Amino acid sequence: MKLDTLDTPAALVDVPRMNRNIERMQARMNALGVRFRPHVKTTKCLEVVRAQLAAGANGITVSTLKEAEVFFAAGVTDILYAVSIAPSKLPRALALRQRGCDLKLVVDSAGAAVEVARFCAAQRATFEVWIEVDTDGHRSGISPEQDALLEVGRILHDGGVGLGGVMTHAGSSYELHTPEALAALAEQERAGCVRAAQRLRDAGFPCEAVSVGSTPTALSAGKLDGVSEVRAGVYVFFDLVMHNVGVCSIDDIALSVLTTVIGHQPEKDWVILDAGWMAMSRDRGTSKQMHDFGYGLPCGLDGTPLTDWVLSSANQEHGILSPAQGAQLGEPLATRFPVGTKLRILPNHACATGAQFPEYHALSADGETTVWSRFHGW
Amino acid sequence: MKLDTLDTPAALVDVPRMNRNIERMQARMNALGVRFRPHVKTTKCLEVVRAQLAAGANGITVSTLKEAEVFFAAGVTDILYAVSIAPSKLPRALALRQRGCDLKLVVDSAGAAVEVARFCAAQRATFEVWIEVDTDGHRSGISPEQDALLEVGRILHDGGVGLGGVMTHAGSSYELHTPEALAALAEQERAGCVRAAQRLRDAGFPCEAVSVGSTPTALSAGKLDGVSEVRAGVYVFFDLVMHNVGVCSIDDIALSVLTTVIGHQPEKDWVILDAGWMAMSRDRGTSKQMHDFGYGLPCGLDGTPLTDWVLSSANQEHGILSPAQGAQLGEPLATRFPVGTKLRILPNHACATGAQFPEYHALSADGETTVWSRFHGW
Repeated sequence: MKLDTLDTPAALVDVPRMNRNIERMQARMNALGVRFRPHVKTTKCLEVVRAQLAAGANGITVSTLKEAEVFFAAGVTDILYAVSIAPSKLPRALALRQRGCDLKLVVDSAGAAVEVARFCAAQRATFEVWIEVDTDGHRSGISPEQDALLEVGRILHDGGVGLGGVMTHAGSSYELHTPEALAALAEQERAGCVRAAQRLRDAGFPCEAVSVGSTPTALSAGKLDGVSEVRAGVYVFFDLVMHNVGVCSIDDIALSVLTTVIGHQPEKDWVILDAGWMAMSRDRGTSKQMHDFGYGLPCGLDGTPLTDWVLSSANQEHGILSPAQGAQLGEPLATRFPVGTKLRILPNHACATGAQFPEYHALSADGETTVWSRFHGW
Repeated sequence: MKLDTLDTPAALVDVPRMNRNIERMQARMNALGVRFRPHVKTTKCLEVVRAQLAAGANGITVSTLKEAEVFFAAGVTDILYAVSIAPSKLPRALALRQRGCDLKLVVDSAGAAVEVARFCAAQRATFEVWIEVDTDGHRSGISPEQDALLEVGRILHDGGVGLGGVMTHAGSSYELHTPEALAALAEQERAGCVRAAQRLRDAGFPCEAVSVGSTPTALSAGKLDGVSEVRAGVYVFFDLVMHNVGVCSIDDIALSVLTTVIGHQPEKDWVILDAGWMAMSRDRGTSKQMHDFGYGLPCGLDGTPLTDWVLSSANQEHGILSPAQGAQLGEPLATRFPVGTKLRILPNHACATGAQFPEYHALSADGETTVWSRFHGW
């Protein structure tokens, strides 16, 4: 189907841009001499994951067991489930391993390690488990120098659980916006994770994998000595948050929401769209950044940004487009954007916006679109 | 299944609370002498809609044509699609009418009215169209005194389109929090919509339906003279935003997210959960209200609120529970909330949180759960 015949709202993937983003990241990882394990939580879409693997990725990272199940069923075997395992999910994880999936789990506490060891003993099974390392204090993980690191290593090792490596995610990189700060955080992430691996090895535990990553640090690391693999997710589509962080240009953003003008409030210079927060998500990730894009940056149907406008507000199925600060309106709204006009909105956060849709419409260079299914739920 | 055997995160519906909410609203509408047309965008779930209709509702309101299609297929015929129609959606709307659905459309501009009239002429078809009236300036609609109201009426009427009524939604009620202000806005909503209907009738146009509503105004209106029906959506589950508005208590909130403790950061007093923004949504609707509940209010598995805690931060699949301001921690985190502990989180906004899940788990008074499917997409 052609773009202008799609029902709205619809999630569009600009395939040439996506492929360029995939090639850029993979080339960088190849040059740094590390494997690359894309985080598929961004897209949850088989066509995208196949493109990532075809470009040279080694395995995938998932955020839910459902992702692991769906992609394993599609033939992907090397899977890291990068969220500390809830004990009640262990039977589901074991079922995947018993079907041949090389599923790796993550823990970051003695409590979780004890539960995994106990389950393995009861089931006469084992898992490969990686320990999550905290290198920037933003969420979970054990700091490289904490006693808990070796304690967890010992619980797993003594419990007959395979200790496969360490992993970290410097998610605070989303709060930065200069190349220098990003490079420094990338080095902090690398050094902390390598240090944790070294401590485990020095204590006599195996620790083969040293896995780091976030899109900003992956694109900012100067060297990755001691690292075996990098993970990143949102780079495949990029978004306005990543633009503000400084790791992509507006022209790299491969996800947009196709929408239709459904009305106006002429006295307020508002254009009403059929893309509200149900389409864009409630993510306001740019609100604390240097450039606040509201709920998204509008573009024409051909993708040209309309930088004089912003999606300033969103109800469930209504979006309000209003003039950006300082913009001069040249003509009446109903002339500039008649009812029925189609626009495309670049999102703040591709992971959140994509999740609102049951499918993408993949837009190729010749203007044709193809449906790419995506799934949701756990 | 019992609650403690469900995989997490999961969306729970407390069925006794939901039924109480449905009965409360319907009894109020009956007492006020108006019909009630629930907005099903909140739940997109057949079991919930059946309960609303069984309690006495007359027809439903939808926010997407997909909702209309799904509920019409399930036997609901009286449907108001309460978003100004995009011209490209007219063929889909017509298909529903031709299959016997009493689908009513909405427009709020001459541009949209012209498109509907043109389509009807080309297809030798007609629609019933209601005009959206703006009674509080928060989004779309035509103000009752504007010339555009009669202009749109004339375009529809002269174009052979059935002018079925007027409708308004005082969505700014979400910003209020006193009974007096809510009652005043409810009266403003009523009076404005009735006035618009009167102007249309005075000009010789038919205008049977006078439809008003939002959950806060529906629960605050003192009289509804001249109104034929009321619409409301979120009342069926309520949420923390509605609690802050003052139209429900915490004990009325029927939707919660079941989650599991997956780790701790003891030095920061953080408990890490497997409910992040993918489960809760990014909705931070309480952030500008009197009580900011972060990403949600945690409760024990039995539903007892843990008011000393707040879901203060959320990544995609990680939630961070931290002490509420001023709270005193009595015991170590790993003792208070061991890994594997299950909690329930009350959401800021039930419409947004529900949309993150492919299904609800309906929890009955005896502690058993049943799967209720919900759909997403357009």
